[in-house]
Amino acid sequence: MDGGVKSIDWAQVVADLAPIECIADRALVRQKSRDFFWYSPVLNERLKGVRGDLVVAPASEDEVVRTLAYCHARRIPVTPRGAGTGNYGQAMPLEGGVVLDLSRLDRFLGLEDGVARVQAGLKLIDLEAHTLPQGWELRFHPSTRRTATIGGFVAGGSGGVGSIQFGGLRNRGNVLGLRLVTMEAEPRILELGGDDVMPAVHAYGTNGIITELAMPLARAWPWHEAIVSFADIGPASAFANALGEADGVMKKLIAVFDWGAAQYFKPLLGHLVPRQAIALVMINDGAREAFSSLVAAHGGTPVFERPYGAESDDIPPLYEFTWNHTTLWALKADRTITYLQCLFAGPDYLDKIARTIATFGDETPMHLELTRFDGRIAAFGLQLVRYTSERRLYEIIGWLESSGIPVADPHTFILEDGGMKTVDEAQLAFKRQNDPLGLLNPGKMKAWSAPPCS
Amino acid sequence: MDGGVKSIDWAQVVADLAPIECIADRALVRQKSRDFFWYSPVLNERLKGVRGDLVVAPASEDEVVRTLAYCHARRIPVTPRGAGTGNYGQAMPLEGGVVLDLSRLDRFLGLEDGVARVQAGLKLIDLEAHTLPQGWELRFHPSTRRTATIGGFVAGGSGGVGSIQFGGLRNRGNVLGLRLVTMEAEPRILELGGDDVMPAVHAYGTNGIITELAMPLARAWPWHEAIVSFADIGPASAFANALGEADGVMKKLIAVFDWGAAQYFKPLLGHLVPRQAIALVMINDGAREAFSSLVAAHGGTPVFERPYGAESDDIPPLYEFTWNHTTLWALKADRTITYLQCLFAGPDYLDKIARTIATFGDETPMHLELTRFDGRIAAFGLQLVRYTSERRLYEIIGWLESSGIPVADPHTFILEDGGMKTVDEAQLAFKRQNDPLGLLNPGKMKAWSAPPCS
Repeated sequence: MDGGVKSIDWAQVVADLAPIECIADRALVRQKSRDFFWYSPVLNERLKGVRGDLVVAPASEDEVVRTLAYCHARRIPVTPRGAGTGNYGQAMPLEGGVVLDLSRLDRFLGLEDGVARVQAGLKLIDLEAHTLPQGWELRFHPSTRRTATIGGFVAGGSGGVGSIQFGGLRNRGNVLGLRLVTMEAEPRILELGGDDVMPAVHAYGTNGIITELAMPLARAWPWHEAIVSFADIGPASAFANALGEADGVMKKLIAVFDWGAAQYFKPLLGHLVPRQAIALVMINDGAREAFSSLVAAHGGTPVFERPYGAESDDIPPLYEFTWNHTTLWALKADRTITYLQCLFAGPDYLDKIARTIATFGDETPMHLELTRFDGRIAAFGLQLVRYTSERRLYEIIGWLESSGIPVADPHTFILEDGGMKTVDEAQLAFKRQNDPLGLLNPGKMKAWSAPPCS
Repeated sequence: MDGGVKSIDWAQVVADLAPIECIADRALVRQKSRDFFWYSPVLNERLKGVRGDLVVAPASEDEVVRTLAYCHARRIPVTPRGAGTGNYGQAMPLEGGVVLDLSRLDRFLGLEDGVARVQAGLKLIDLEAHTLPQGWELRFHPSTRRTATIGGFVAGGSGGVGSIQFGGLRNRGNVLGLRLVTMEAEPRILELGGDDVMPAVHAYGTNGIITELAMPLARAWPWHEAIVSFADIGPASAFANALGEADGVMKKLIAVFDWGAAQYFKPLLGHLVPRQAIALVMINDGAREAFSSLVAAHGGTPVFERPYGAESDDIPPLYEFTWNHTTLWALKADRTITYLQCLFAGPDYLDKIARTIATFGDETPMHLELTRFDGRIAAFGLQLVRYTSERRLYEIIGWLESSGIPVADPHTFILEDGGMKTVDEAQLAFKRQNDPLGLLNPGKMKAWSAPPCS
């Protein structure tokens, strides 16, 4: 399948946009049109043929403005992307047209009072390469820290390694400011701060192109990585919760896996006890003794420890087994596997986890990422799914939702269906202002096709 | 009333202990025998005449060992003290004898990987004078930061400014290690770490004398102080809770006062709106815009803001209006006032606060200190009490406890009665080992007089 926009002379576009870098090579365009949507067999079926017509890779905000004005004039759809590490087809150009590769917008602009000002295409790892020597680190990052861009994370992500301390992108204070270019005849550059950043966060670039960000950082810590083994996922979850609630122990990561999920962590297998559940954690180095007491109190056995940053060729940083990387390890071994994203929250959240496990067993090997959610410890369930059919997948989702366990469906590319299942009026209103022709990342915002409220 | 030990020739003790510094002057001994017990009219009545016989002020751990061995041989009670800033008579020498002033044990021993090793008598402010230039600060401190010692805080305190982030001393990981001298013929020096530190924390020095501590620090932050005014304490409390639960905003202090309490903050009055409730907060500087949004969403009005550390002669650091300093401001204006210490916790904690206010009104002007308590936001109630009688005081305490609001009674000098109301078997067992004759801070540990479990 070719890109969706047929009436355009793409060679002319390349010439018109010069000297802005463009890629027209079919194979490269196809490669740059894809993200990790194939985590989902449902999305894979629907999106595998999708591709853009042209990749445009601006190297400055001015070039972004020029590109958008040009595409607006010719009604060319524009779908932005960072490193393409999203899993929900966020960056898939459903209607073809231009894939706007922002990865050349990679300048580190400054660090002041713990706030990093950066261009959107800067990789997370490169951002931290600037800030770590000055004692600062990202508050939280996806498991794709070594490949993802900061703009892609803010536009398409939600939280990650560090959310156990700082919550997620949706929480006030975790994105301090951003510059956004609108899709109009004369694109405006908006400087947003405070609550005004929110409509552009996790909007998949549907209501503007983020070019710069002001990100609040955390003081860098000497973190310590550990894997703890438990007879069963029950005590592993109880331990994880207790560690989450241990106010005197700082932590950056608490992930829990039953053996059904852990068995795919090939580089770790030499350290794991077959058939046991594990917790993967990052704690502050000074808390090691307190941590050991807590482990012992919950019947756990430490099976692996090392200072964070000491990864070897054999074993990558432990966070690369967590969050959305977990599914990747499983997919490497078994292409029929997919996953879910749900929220176990509330005072009975450990019960909800236990009931889910009792109901689905090894059909959905359990994977939990503990997080702070509105000030309390909760767990995202990113359980694997031994996929049989779309129908069965949605049966499982139905059971979860009717059991008071909200699902952020990772098997849809629709913005609203993936998250809170409601139309975000602020995001929609913002799109009406900033992209009146609906050219930005078309097909992702369900509410867009609804009639505007007068 | 003289000290309680009559048969001792104190001049001989001074001579025997030389060159260890001793103070025998009656007025000075009386002064060094007192803490802030007079916050409580009940304690004031019971303790006002209490004094030691001799102050001994060792300048090294060796001198502590020598003093304890000497006092053990002569059966002289020893009551340790830091700066004497406790409010519960923790440091009052009930049976006279030696007041062991540890404030000359004030060496800063080192800072490594965010852990400060210090002698117990080091003042908190001097500890931070060493660590702040290297980018580290105390995780939390009492409102007496400018006068209290670290050992006194660990032995007699519980939490304070910063507990909204790190919980309290009772939480694993907040005291990493300590050296403790036992009260025996040949005093032992115990090096404790992990959970083993716990029996010596908040034990009032009844089971050993802390000489050194390993304290985990937090990375220092550019904090921002603010006072926000609200029509009523209801919205002020709701705001405080929302700020507590705002995971993207770092905070070090969230205190709430109704006008009945705030009216005593003389240096602040020019900024306050009469009859309104206020919240005093410290947030990370980078979160100011997010904070403003939250304030606006809760109908608050910022009435005072400044960077932390910019205090003037007119207005001391805002934390000096919070925690136990609040009562001090009230006592300066009205000597009949005292206070309570209770815990509003659980999912209905805001309701509990509202019911308490509805029941007692201006008899107990409300003062809340938000904290993390086992991973969740809760509030310590340090409400003022317009004291009429001991009987009425215990009526109020009775109502609170029967309403599911535990009270840590600040009107008792008994260790167990002030806290969880249960005998701490570990503390008791530890005292049996370390102070078999019961000479350390006698009269404070209720369980001591009970027969030992076999």
